[in-house]
Amino acid sequence: MGLYQHTFYSEELGRIMDKESFIEQMLKVEASLAETQAAAGIFPESSAETIQTCAKIAFIDLDRLKKDIILGGNAAIPLVKQLTTLVKTKDFEASKHVHFGATSQDIIDSATVLQLIQAAAWMDNQLKHLESVLEQLVETHRDTLMIGRTLLQQAKPITFGFKAALWLKSIRQDRTRLQQAVENNKILQMYGAVGAGHARMNAEVLEKLAVALDLKTEGSWQSSRGNLCEFASALGILSGNLGKIAKDISLLMQTEIAEVFEGAAEGKGGSSTMPHKRNPVNCALILSNATRTPALVSTMLSAMLQEHERSAGLWHAEWETLHDLIQLTGGSLEKSVDLLAHLEVNQDKMRENLEVTQGLIFAEGVSLALAPEMGKLKAHEFVQKACKTALYEQKHLKQVLEEQGVKLPNLAELFKPENALGLVHEMIDEILKK
Amino acid sequence: MGLYQHTFYSEELGRIMDKESFIEQMLKVEASLAETQAAAGIFPESSAETIQTCAKIAFIDLDRLKKDIILGGNAAIPLVKQLTTLVKTKDFEASKHVHFGATSQDIIDSATVLQLIQAAAWMDNQLKHLESVLEQLVETHRDTLMIGRTLLQQAKPITFGFKAALWLKSIRQDRTRLQQAVENNKILQMYGAVGAGHARMNAEVLEKLAVALDLKTEGSWQSSRGNLCEFASALGILSGNLGKIAKDISLLMQTEIAEVFEGAAEGKGGSSTMPHKRNPVNCALILSNATRTPALVSTMLSAMLQEHERSAGLWHAEWETLHDLIQLTGGSLEKSVDLLAHLEVNQDKMRENLEVTQGLIFAEGVSLALAPEMGKLKAHEFVQKACKTALYEQKHLKQVLEEQGVKLPNLAELFKPENALGLVHEMIDEILKK
Amino acid sequence: MGLYQHTFYSEELGRIMDKESFIEQMLKVEASLAETQAAAGIFPESSAETIQTCAKIAFIDLDRLKKDIILGGNAAIPLVKQLTTLVKTKDFEASKHVHFGATSQDIIDSATVLQLIQAAAWMDNQLKHLESVLEQLVETHRDTLMIGRTLLQQAKPITFGFKAALWLKSIRQDRTRLQQAVENNKILQMYGAVGAGHARMNAEVLEKLAVALDLKTEGSWQSSRGNLCEFASALGILSGNLGKIAKDISLLMQTEIAEVFEGAAEGKGGSSTMPHKRNPVNCALILSNATRTPALVSTMLSAMLQEHERSAGLWHAEWETLHDLIQLTGGSLEKSVDLLAHLEVNQDKMRENLEVTQGLIFAEGVSLALAPEMGKLKAHEFVQKACKTALYEQKHLKQVLEEQGVKLPNLAELFKPENALGLVHEMIDEILKK
Amino acid sequence: MGLYQHTFYSEELGRIMDKESFIEQMLKVEASLAETQAAAGIFPESSAETIQTCAKIAFIDLDRLKKDIILGGNAAIPLVKQLTTLVKTKDFEASKHVHFGATSQDIIDSATVLQLIQAAAWMDNQLKHLESVLEQLVETHRDTLMIGRTLLQQAKPITFGFKAALWLKSIRQDRTRLQQAVENNKILQMYGAVGAGHARMNAEVLEKLAVALDLKTEGSWQSSRGNLCEFASALGILSGNLGKIAKDISLLMQTEIAEVFEGAAEGKGGSSTMPHKRNPVNCALILSNATRTPALVSTMLSAMLQEHERSAGLWHAEWETLHDLIQLTGGSLEKSVDLLAHLEVNQDKMRENLEVTQGLIFAEGVSLALAPEMGKLKAHEFVQKACKTALYEQKHLKQVLEEQGVKLPNLAELFKPENALGLVHEMIDEILKK
Repeated sequence: MGLYQHTFYSEELGRIMDKESFIEQMLKVEASLAETQAAAGIFPESSAETIQTCAKIAFIDLDRLKKDIILGGNAAIPLVKQLTTLVKTKDFEASKHVHFGATSQDIIDSATVLQLIQAAAWMDNQLKHLESVLEQLVETHRDTLMIGRTLLQQAKPITFGFKAALWLKSIRQDRTRLQQAVENNKILQMYGAVGAGHARMNAEVLEKLAVALDLKTEGSWQSSRGNLCEFASALGILSGNLGKIAKDISLLMQTEIAEVFEGAAEGKGGSSTMPHKRNPVNCALILSNATRTPALVSTMLSAMLQEHERSAGLWHAEWETLHDLIQLTGGSLEKSVDLLAHLEVNQDKMRENLEVTQGLIFAEGVSLALAPEMGKLKAHEFVQKACKTALYEQKHLKQVLEEQGVKLPNLAELFKPENALGLVHEMIDEILKK
Repeated sequence: MGLYQHTFYSEELGRIMDKESFIEQMLKVEASLAETQAAAGIFPESSAETIQTCAKIAFIDLDRLKKDIILGGNAAIPLVKQLTTLVKTKDFEASKHVHFGATSQDIIDSATVLQLIQAAAWMDNQLKHLESVLEQLVETHRDTLMIGRTLLQQAKPITFGFKAALWLKSIRQDRTRLQQAVENNKILQMYGAVGAGHARMNAEVLEKLAVALDLKTEGSWQSSRGNLCEFASALGILSGNLGKIAKDISLLMQTEIAEVFEGAAEGKGGSSTMPHKRNPVNCALILSNATRTPALVSTMLSAMLQEHERSAGLWHAEWETLHDLIQLTGGSLEKSVDLLAHLEVNQDKMRENLEVTQGLIFAEGVSLALAPEMGKLKAHEFVQKACKTALYEQKHLKQVLEEQGVKLPNLAELFKPENALGLVHEMIDEILKK
Repeated sequence: MGLYQHTFYSEELGRIMDKESFIEQMLKVEASLAETQAAAGIFPESSAETIQTCAKIAFIDLDRLKKDIILGGNAAIPLVKQLTTLVKTKDFEASKHVHFGATSQDIIDSATVLQLIQAAAWMDNQLKHLESVLEQLVETHRDTLMIGRTLLQQAKPITFGFKAALWLKSIRQDRTRLQQAVENNKILQMYGAVGAGHARMNAEVLEKLAVALDLKTEGSWQSSRGNLCEFASALGILSGNLGKIAKDISLLMQTEIAEVFEGAAEGKGGSSTMPHKRNPVNCALILSNATRTPALVSTMLSAMLQEHERSAGLWHAEWETLHDLIQLTGGSLEKSVDLLAHLEVNQDKMRENLEVTQGLIFAEGVSLALAPEMGKLKAHEFVQKACKTALYEQKHLKQVLEEQGVKLPNLAELFKPENALGLVHEMIDEILKK
Repeated sequence: MGLYQHTFYSEELGRIMDKESFIEQMLKVEASLAETQAAAGIFPESSAETIQTCAKIAFIDLDRLKKDIILGGNAAIPLVKQLTTLVKTKDFEASKHVHFGATSQDIIDSATVLQLIQAAAWMDNQLKHLESVLEQLVETHRDTLMIGRTLLQQAKPITFGFKAALWLKSIRQDRTRLQQAVENNKILQMYGAVGAGHARMNAEVLEKLAVALDLKTEGSWQSSRGNLCEFASALGILSGNLGKIAKDISLLMQTEIAEVFEGAAEGKGGSSTMPHKRNPVNCALILSNATRTPALVSTMLSAMLQEHERSAGLWHAEWETLHDLIQLTGGSLEKSVDLLAHLEVNQDKMRENLEVTQGLIFAEGVSLALAPEMGKLKAHEFVQKACKTALYEQKHLKQVLEEQGVKLPNLAELFKPENALGLVHEMIDEILKK
C-alpha cells in the first residue's frame, strides 16, 4: 500500500531496492555491455561512449516507462526504447549499438543479480551487527537464571545467555547460508533471445562483461531458477529465525511473565486506548513479516516450472515476489538489531518465575536422583505423584517429598536452579569461542 | 517495486485501494462515529461537526503519518493523533471526543471493510462485463469446431464456444461467490480495546453507526478472521479461474497451434529481439498473478491463529497481504476483460488442427461403434492397434480400418468432428439460457 | 508416515476417507451408471445387474490396483480393468457395458464428491456437537471474570464466557460456510473424454444418474475447479478457527498464567522427562494441523490452472492434497470437541491474574473518566504518566492516582473488573439467543 | 490416501522412509545412547547389552504405539515405554537406564536426521544416475536442431542437446546443494528436557554417541530449525527443477508439436476412452509433485517460529511435512530417471517444426544483418513489417525480403538454423567437460 513503507521495511534497504536503483542497474548493464563490445572491436568506442553518457537514470522518463511496461510485458523493452532514442539524438550510429544482441531477460536478470548482491551485502552487514549484539547479550547473561519452557510449560532452568546463544548460532548459520547463496547467484545473464548466445556476444565479450560487473559466466540460466530460489530460501530461513527470536521475546514480554521488554523509545509501543501498555511493537512487525515470507518462498518455488527458454508468466511472478521477500526480510533484520540492542532484561522477574511452580521444575532432577534406588520408571511415577500432591495441596515439592520420607542427602541442592543447568555453560562458551 | 504499478494491476482499482483512499475511509469512520455519538447525546453536536470538518485527507501529513506508524505499530494511532491536533486548534472541547471509546483496530478493520466493499463493487462490475464478453464469445463460436485436449494431447472434438461456455460458468460462480463473501464482511468493527464494547459505544450508537456506514453489527470480530479469509479465498479462486483461461489461451497461441491470439494493440506483445513474435502478454501477466495469489491466501489463513483479543503480528500480516491479493486479482480481472474482448480466433487453424492426427481423434467413436459387435474391451484394443498402425505407417486411421476390413456402414460419418460433439450444444445452450 | 494416523487425524473420519471407501464410491458410480443406462434402454438390464453384482470392493485386488495406477496415471483405469474382467467371467455381453461412455475423471471426480459429502456430513455433526459444547461453556462462564489481552499484554477485563462466545460465533460461521460449500459441490461429473458428453450418456441418463447419487447436473467441471477450491478454503478457514481456539487455550495454559487446562486423561500430556508437566497435547496437535492446512489450500488454488479439457498434473495434485486437508481438518475438529468438552477452567487464577498489574488494566477507564475534565489527550497522558509511576514505585495505580490528587467520586468503582465489561453480556446473550 | 503409494512416490525410497524404518532409527539412537553411556561408566555394560538386545523393531507393538502417540503427543514416549517394559522383563536394573537423561525430541530429531541421511544418500545415487542419463542425452543430441521457444512462441533455433545441457546443469547444482544441506544436518540432538544438556550426557558421551551415529555435535538445535529448512528448501528446489524438465517434455509431447515422447512401456500412458493417446504420465506425476512441494516448504518455514525450548505444535507440524516432501521429491526423481532414460526424440518433427513460421524465426538474424546498414531500430522495424507481410500473404520471409529488395549476399545462409546457434555448442561442451 505504500502506507507501511517504514513499518515492515528498512528505509535504507528500501533505497537499494527501489525502482530507481533497479533502473540504474539495468542501465549499468547496458552501458557495460556497450563498453565491452566496443573494447572487443564489435563497434566503435564512440558508440559505447555515447551509450554510457546517456545511460543515466536522470534522463529516463519514469512515468512513461512504468506505463509502457504493459506493452511488452517487461521493464527492459521500454527502457531500451528510451535509451535508444536518447542515444540517437546524439549519435545516430551509436543508436544501432544499444542493447546489441541482448534480450530483455539478459538485462533484467543481470540487473536483478546486481541489486540482489547489494541487498545481500547490506544484510551481511546487519547480520554482523546482530551477531555482535547477540554476543554481548550472551556474555552479559551467561549466568542469568531463567526457566526453560517446552510446550509453553515451565520445564527446567536455563540461563538467558543460553537462550540467546542459540539465537546467535542460528544467526551465524543464516549469515553463512546467505553468503553462499549470493555467491551462487553472481552469474551474468547475457545470452540473447533464447539463452543460446550470440556472435556479437562471444565468449570474450561475456567474460569481460562479467568481470566488469563483478560476476561470473556459467552459461545461461534463463529458465533454470534453482540458484535464485536458493537465495529466496535463505531469506525465508533468515526471516524464520528472526521470527523465532521475536516469538520468544513477545512471549517473555507477556504481562504475567514480564522477563524481558522491548526498549522503550519515546512514544513507541503505546496503545491508543490503554495508556499503561508496552506493546511488543518490533516483535509484532518481525512476526508479521515471518508470517508472510514462507508463502513468498513457495511462490518462488512454484515459479520454477518455466516453460522452455522463457516462461509466459512464471518469470514475471518472480519480480515482485523476490523484491518483497528481500524487503520484508531486510525489514525484520533491521528491526531485530534494534530489538536486541535495546532489550531490557528483568533478572529479578526471571528469578521470581523460577519459583512459580513451587519446586515442580526440579522434579526431573529428583526423579533421576531417585532412579538408582527405585528404577527409572518407578522413580518417574513416584515423583509424578508427589507433583500432583504438591499441586493439589499447594505445597512446595520439596516439602511433599520430605513428608513422604524421601531422604536424599542432597535434596536441597536439587532445588537450586544453578545446580540444574546441565551443559549450559559449556555450550555457551563453545558458541562464544567461535 | 512500484515499477509494475501498471503491469500487474488495474489503475482504476489502484485508486480505490491506494493509501489515500484507505486514510479517507479511516477518517470517514472517525467522522461517522463522532456524528453518531453526538446524535445519541454522548457529547455535543458541535464536537461532531468540528471533527467532521477536520477529518479530511487534505489536512493529513501523509509522510509524517507513514513514519509514525512504526511507533504504535498501526496506522490508526498516528492518524488519530493528527486528527486530534487538528480538532484541538478549532475546538478544544471537541478534541476530547475524537476516536471516543474506539481502539485502533476498530478504525482499521472498519475502514478495511469499507475499502473492500468498494473494491468488490468494482470487481462485480468487471465480472459483469466479463460475463457479457464471454457470452458473446460463446454465441459467436457455438459451432466453431476445434479439438478438445486432455493431458495436452488431442482428444476429441469440441467447439470453441463450449470451451468458452465453461469459462463463463466459472466466472458466474466467481461473481456469486464474491458477492456472498462481501456480504459476510459488511460488519462494523467498533468494540474498543478488547472487543468487548463500551459505555460510550452502546448498542444504539453501534446500530446507528453501522447504518451510517452501510454495515451491519454482529459483535466483535477482532480476532475471528474467518469471514475475511472467506473473502480472500474467493479472490484466490477468481484469480485461479482467470489463470485457467489465460493458461488455455496461452497454449492455444503457441506458434505450432495458433488457434487464438491476443488482440494486437499497437506496439504490444512485441519482443525486443524477435520482430516477428506476438507474445501472450496479457496471458503472461494474468498467469503471473495467478501464480502469486495462492500463497497470499495461505498467508491470510496462516494469520488466523490470532492470540487472544488482538494478535501481536498476525493481524498486521493481513494488511498488505489482503491488499496485494485484491490488487493482483483486480489486475487479472481487468486484463482478462481486455484479453477476451479482443481475442482473435483463427477458425481455419482450429479446423486444420483437427486433421493433425489423421483421424486418431475419432478412435473412441470408432471403438464405441465397434463395441456392440466386438465387446468394449476388444474393440478398444483393436482400435488401439489400428491407431499404432496408422501412426507407424503415417496413414489416416479411416484408411487403416478399411484396410483391416472394418465395414461399419457409417464409418465416414464417424470421422466428421461435427458428429462427435456429444452434448456440446445442449450444455452451451443451457449456460447461455441463464 | 502412517505413524501418526491416530495423532493428527480422526479415526472415524479416517474410515470415511480411506482408500477402500474411495474405491467403494468409484464402484458405486460405475454401478449406478450401468443401472441408469440400462433403465434408459441403452443396454439390457442384465448387464447392469451383473455389473452391480461385481462392483464390490471385496472382489478388487487392492495391491494390484495400487501398482497399476502408475500405468495410466489414475485410479479409475485399473479399477475399470479389474471390474471388466470380473464382469466378463460372468457375462461376456455385460463386460461391454462397464464404464460405458465414461472417462476416468468422471469416476474419480464423482466419487470424490460422494466421499466429500460424507466427510462434510461427519464434520457437520462434529460442528453441531462443538457448538453445543461451546454454548455450555459460554453459559457456564458468562460471568467468569478474566483479563482480555491484546498483543499478549493484559488490556481490559472480559469474561471467559465472552471469549468462548466469539469462538462459538466463528464455529457457527464455519458450519454455514461448509454446508454452502458442500452444496456447491454436489455436482455429477459424467461427461466423457473431453467433458463434452456423449450419446450413451444423454441428458436423461445424466439426470437420473445424478438423482441416484443424490447429486445435481450442472454440466462438466473437468477443469473448472472453483467449487472444489471453495470447499478446500472452507476447510482451511475451519482449521484456522480451531487453531485460534487452540492458540488461546495453549497460551492460557502457560505455567505462569494457568487459567485453563486440557482435561487430564489418564497418561495424557505427560512428559517423558518432566513428571510434573501437563502439556497442551490436544492444542499442540490442532495447532500443528492449522500450521499445515493453509499451504494445502494454496496447493489447491495453484492447481486451478488446469490446461484445456484435462490437466497433465494439476488434477493429480488435488487428490492427496484435498484428502489431507479433509483429514487434518477433521482431526482438529474431533480434537477440539475433546479439548473443549473437558476443558478445566481455573476461575480463581483468572481472578488472581486480574490483579497482576496492580490496577493498570483499569487505566483506560480512569482516563475516560478524567477526559470530560481534562480533555481526552491530556487525560491519556496524565494517566500514562501515573501508570509509569505505579510501575516504577511498584504501587497500585489507584494509590498513585490518589496520591496525585485525583478526586473522582467513583474511583474505587473504576477498579472493579465487573464494572469494566462494556457490552460483554449483551454480546454473549445475543450470541446465545441464536 | 495410501492409494497412490506407487503413483507419486518411489517404492525404494518408501522403504527407507516408512514408519518401521523410522522406529528402527529411534531404537538405534536409544541403543547407541545406552552403549555410549555404559562405555563412559555411567551405568554397567550389562544394562547397555540388554537394552541393545531389546531395541529391535520386531519386539515393538506397532499398533499400540500408533494409538499411544496421542497420549504424549509424540512417537518417542510410547516407544520408550514399550522398550522399558521389554528391558524390565530381562533385567530390572537395566530398565532404569533406558532413555537415560534423554528427552523425546532427542530421539525423534536424531532419528529424523539418520533417516534423512539415508534418504539423501538414495537421492544422491539417483541424481548421479540422472546426471549420466542427461549427459548421454546431451551428447547424442548435441547437434539435433530444434526451435527454442520463449513465452510459448517459436523464437530462434537451438539444439535439443543444448536444452538438455541446461537441465543437466540444474541437476548438478541440485546434487551439490543437497549434499551441502545434508552435511549441515548431520548433527546429533541429545540435550535433554530443555536442550541444555545433562550430567548423564556429558561432553564425552555426546562426542562418542555422535561418532557412533556418524554425526557431529554442535549443541542443541531443538527450536533452531534453520538447517532442517535448508534441507527442505533443497528438496523443494530439486522438485522444481525436475518439474521444469517435465513441463518442457509435456509441452514438447503435445500432439501438434510431437518432438519428444515418454518411452512407451507396455500398457502405460493409455487412456480409458481414447485408444490413440500417449499421455505424458510420468510428466504429469512429476508436475503434480512439483505443484505440491512448494507449499510443503512454506509449511516448514512457517513452522520455524517455535516457542522457547520446544514448540507446542510447530515441531509437530514438521514431521509429516518433511516426510511428504522427501517422498514426493524422491518419487519425482525416480520418475525423472525413467522419463529421461527412455525418452524418444523425434528429430524429423523437430526439423519440421523449424519450418512452421516460414522463416520468421530467422527474423532477428536478418534484423541484425541489416542493422549496420540501416541502424538497429530501423532494421528492427523494417523486418517487423516484412514479418507482418509474410504472415498476411502466407509467404516465406526470405521471399518477402527479396521482393522488397533486400540484397544481403548471405541471405540464404541467414535462414539455415545451423547458422543461428550462437554459442550453443560452446556452452554444451563447457557443461559436458565438467
